[in-house]
Amino acid sequence: MALYYHEVFEQSVRFGIKIRKTIFEGESEYQRLEILDSDRFGRMLVLDGLFMTSEKDEFFYHEMLIQPALCTVPKLERVLVIGGGDGGSVREILRHPSVEKVVMVEIDEFVVNSCKKYLPMIGTAWDDPRLDLRFDDGIAYVKESEDEPFDVVIVDGTDPVGPGVVLFDLEFFRGCKRMLRPHGVLAMQSESPIYFEKTFVETQHKLAEIFETVRPYFGPVPIYSGGIWSWTFASDQVDPLELNEARVAAITPDSKVYNGEVHRAAFAQPNYIRKLIAG
Amino acid sequence: MALYYHEVFEQSVRFGIKIRKTIFEGESEYQRLEILDSDRFGRMLVLDGLFMTSEKDEFFYHEMLIQPALCTVPKLERVLVIGGGDGGSVREILRHPSVEKVVMVEIDEFVVNSCKKYLPMIGTAWDDPRLDLRFDDGIAYVKESEDEPFDVVIVDGTDPVGPGVVLFDLEFFRGCKRMLRPHGVLAMQSESPIYFEKTFVETQHKLAEIFETVRPYFGPVPIYSGGIWSWTFASDQVDPLELNEARVAAITPDSKVYNGEVHRAAFAQPNYIRKLIAG
Repeated sequence: MALYYHEVFEQSVRFGIKIRKTIFEGESEYQRLEILDSDRFGRMLVLDGLFMTSEKDEFFYHEMLIQPALCTVPKLERVLVIGGGDGGSVREILRHPSVEKVVMVEIDEFVVNSCKKYLPMIGTAWDDPRLDLRFDDGIAYVKESEDEPFDVVIVDGTDPVGPGVVLFDLEFFRGCKRMLRPHGVLAMQSESPIYFEKTFVETQHKLAEIFETVRPYFGPVPIYSGGIWSWTFASDQVDPLELNEARVAAITPDSKVYNGEVHRAAFAQPNYIRKLIAG
Repeated sequence: MALYYHEVFEQSVRFGIKIRKTIFEGESEYQRLEILDSDRFGRMLVLDGLFMTSEKDEFFYHEMLIQPALCTVPKLERVLVIGGGDGGSVREILRHPSVEKVVMVEIDEFVVNSCKKYLPMIGTAWDDPRLDLRFDDGIAYVKESEDEPFDVVIVDGTDPVGPGVVLFDLEFFRGCKRMLRPHGVLAMQSESPIYFEKTFVETQHKLAEIFETVRPYFGPVPIYSGGIWSWTFASDQVDPLELNEARVAAITPDSKVYNGEVHRAAFAQPNYIRKLIAG
């Protein structure tokens, strides 16, 4: 009997991944962390029983969270990341040479330290001098920070359970907007529109209260079962389909999923999504 | 402890769906069949332990198998379906008023009879007089039939295990081509490019030996775990991105996923897919 780790995800379905062994486990004041080794996905990060990312499939998530915003924003120098403890988002951002500074605000130092040690193939840019890593509460940061605003704000948080709930609040979104330059773009993970339909829809509506343009976009993430994942793009001035072709051309050769065609396709809305959002 | 039915799918992952009860089970000379009732997906068809389709998510699969071919082929009168025992494909085809005849060749009468009885919400077009349903071997049919050729051939078969293996053979594809008019289009389900990578790639290559244009296309199917499913479009004369806008406009209002934007987006190729196919 093979040993499967089943995600603690009670939506009347469950997804199990065959595990070779547990590499590391521990607990911070915020969450329980496991690093597992699997046949199919290599090493994996699990937080509070939820699959977060894996060595073999992380690019589906990280490229699509980061590149649509970074390949459309008119100026790309300063980027803020809330969360993103595995380091994949920062790595994707720092592929762009125009980026001068990335401020990453992650509440849980234990996640970063564990990922640095056990998932170094995901977070390959921890030593980049452009990175300013702070262990702090992202909610408070966006509300109170006096830092210069950013061209892009990325929200790379967990599911809307436990500590992740506040990352889907209107107040938090207002804080993110406060930290954006007028031409800025917010991009965030916004859950499965199937298994977290309510969160997905409410996120669109909340963002639409404060941004001129709000567009969900879609793609697969193999370890997030359900067949479809969503991210959301929000901006006052930027059209998500107007690509900076030079940036796209520069990063496409070393991307695993992202290219201009995939960018545009991700924004297509199936009829059931249009209806969900229209309400 | 909730009762989960786990798909018999040994790819080092498994997907489980919480089951309320078994509605029906039986066995034909070809396969074991179960009709289950689930919280999340309603009634489901399971063949030889593999999730085939469900009441709540079937549209993801059937609309995307059928509509891209039917909304691009220049003339749309005669359609052949190989397999498709649940009736979802025939229903999608018969939404087009220009269709004069659908020949459906399904080897297993037991599947059709069980689906007619227990999944009537999927196969809603069984009584359409344009349908010519034959219980016969599709492989032999495409090799030997003297029927007039078709505008579209749809291959709606099971996974490439057991009785489904031959539906991925070059010989079978040659038979399908034999049954097509010169302007015809073949569309088939071609598996997950992640979990059935070899089948997916070989299918592209085999079809490219006999068709001028071969293009995989992608979308989610929630009950097929893995985050991404593929279908493949093959034709000598038809460009998969040249839509018949009148047909698209006619069927979009009553489609759950399909529209012109989704059609075009489905053909976008992520970089890893381009590399897989290039070899």
